[in-house]
Amino acid sequence: MKNQLTVYKIGGKIIDNPTHMKAFLFGIKQSKGHKIIVHGGGNTASKVMNQIGLKPKMIDGRRITDAAALEIVTMVYGGLINKRLVAQLQSIGVNAIGLSGADGDIIRAHKREVREIDYGWVGDIDEVNGKALSAICKNENVPVICPLTHDGNGHMLNTNADTIASQVAIALAQEFDIELVFCFELKGVLSNYDDKQSVIPEISRKDAAQMHNKGIINDGMIPKLKNGFDALEGGVRNVFIKHVEDINDINAGTTLDL
Amino acid sequence: MKNQLTVYKIGGKIIDNPTHMKAFLFGIKQSKGHKIIVHGGGNTASKVMNQIGLKPKMIDGRRITDAAALEIVTMVYGGLINKRLVAQLQSIGVNAIGLSGADGDIIRAHKREVREIDYGWVGDIDEVNGKALSAICKNENVPVICPLTHDGNGHMLNTNADTIASQVAIALAQEFDIELVFCFELKGVLSNYDDKQSVIPEISRKDAAQMHNKGIINDGMIPKLKNGFDALEGGVRNVFIKHVEDINDINAGTTLDL
Repeated sequence: MKNQLTVYKIGGKIIDNPTHMKAFLFGIKQSKGHKIIVHGGGNTASKVMNQIGLKPKMIDGRRITDAAALEIVTMVYGGLINKRLVAQLQSIGVNAIGLSGADGDIIRAHKREVREIDYGWVGDIDEVNGKALSAICKNENVPVICPLTHDGNGHMLNTNADTIASQVAIALAQEFDIELVFCFELKGVLSNYDDKQSVIPEISRKDAAQMHNKGIINDGMIPKLKNGFDALEGGVRNVFIKHVEDINDINAGTTLDL
Repeated sequence: MKNQLTVYKIGGKIIDNPTHMKAFLFGIKQSKGHKIIVHGGGNTASKVMNQIGLKPKMIDGRRITDAAALEIVTMVYGGLINKRLVAQLQSIGVNAIGLSGADGDIIRAHKREVREIDYGWVGDIDEVNGKALSAICKNENVPVICPLTHDGNGHMLNTNADTIASQVAIALAQEFDIELVFCFELKGVLSNYDDKQSVIPEISRKDAAQMHNKGIINDGMIPKLKNGFDALEGGVRNVFIKHVEDINDINAGTTLDL
């Protein structure tokens, strides 16, 4: 039987909210088995850019990462958010180790090709080094991965945290029995955004497409769901989208089905 | 016989200079045995503080790290400088892994007691986790340590990079045959600061004190020398202060003797 490993993804809205962070840390401390945490942090990056007098450029919610923006995300994701989170995890006895994709060569990517839009220093993942991550987990450390990868030629690249979580889960699915949990500030995928209790308990890729067409599921949820379904197809056993307070509640949130 | 491990310390003046960085990377690639890199980066932190409109506060060359300054150094040391250096090392085939003291709980410290001066979030080292660092090195990774530690209560702390290099070297001296190399932009400790060739080949703690009293050695070199002598007393075999271009030249620079 394979050992259990859970990949937890937390977004910027969790990180920026002390109550949510407290819930997350509590949940992580209670959770069993190996774990990997992947974090986002977009809001803080934009805040620091504004402080420096740079204007964040976004297209459809995606950051255009020019050289100046890459400096900021490298500082904010790799430094501020990652190290704070690691220090907080250490304070509750979780032996966290913060990593970007460059550290231990865990995630290689290539700069996204310019088609209609030049996203700048944004990386699309080529390979997750499952062997290196597995060794860290078996050493009883908890990898805390920030949304940065590298290209092998000395450049850092800005990479979507949901995609990293999904690709990391897939890379470890042969060796471990994997759950992927997208933790956020809502109780799951909602059938009615105005009713925060209207959680859809189970959703398939087909359901999701239909609900999106009907306008039931909003645009922001689509990439998260896509990454979740990709993970299931890649051998991940379970994928959940749930509230950060419910991360150890097996009945909570939305379960993804193929 | 113990395995060889070299601890290289590089300061901000090396990091900020592309020619020096190229020399450093070349030297690291050529070097034999296990290695650990410790970096500083003070100038970049001050630059970013100025960009944000914060005024860096220094007393005798030491940074007063209030809460805002701690955010900046966590970003700049742990993120920008550390990740860039790791990506550059990966690009030459060195499997670097960037670490703050919080990562893997490698360096615990306590907030410096307020006496005449309140240094703020500055950490004095309590313990280096040699076992964790040794495991990383034996896994053929190269730890790249930034000048941040943690207090075990969820706080990051700003900590002098020369002290980290010395304490890391001491913590590993029982297991490895250790050399500590302070790499900088001069050829060694100089007997005449205006003559960059006037390298003192060997220096003892007593010599250093005498030369400092006579004004031969300037104030900035004193903490570096102190950390070097402490390392020798702690069981480190050799301590050198040398130019970054000479890191593999055993005859170059200044050798410290007890």
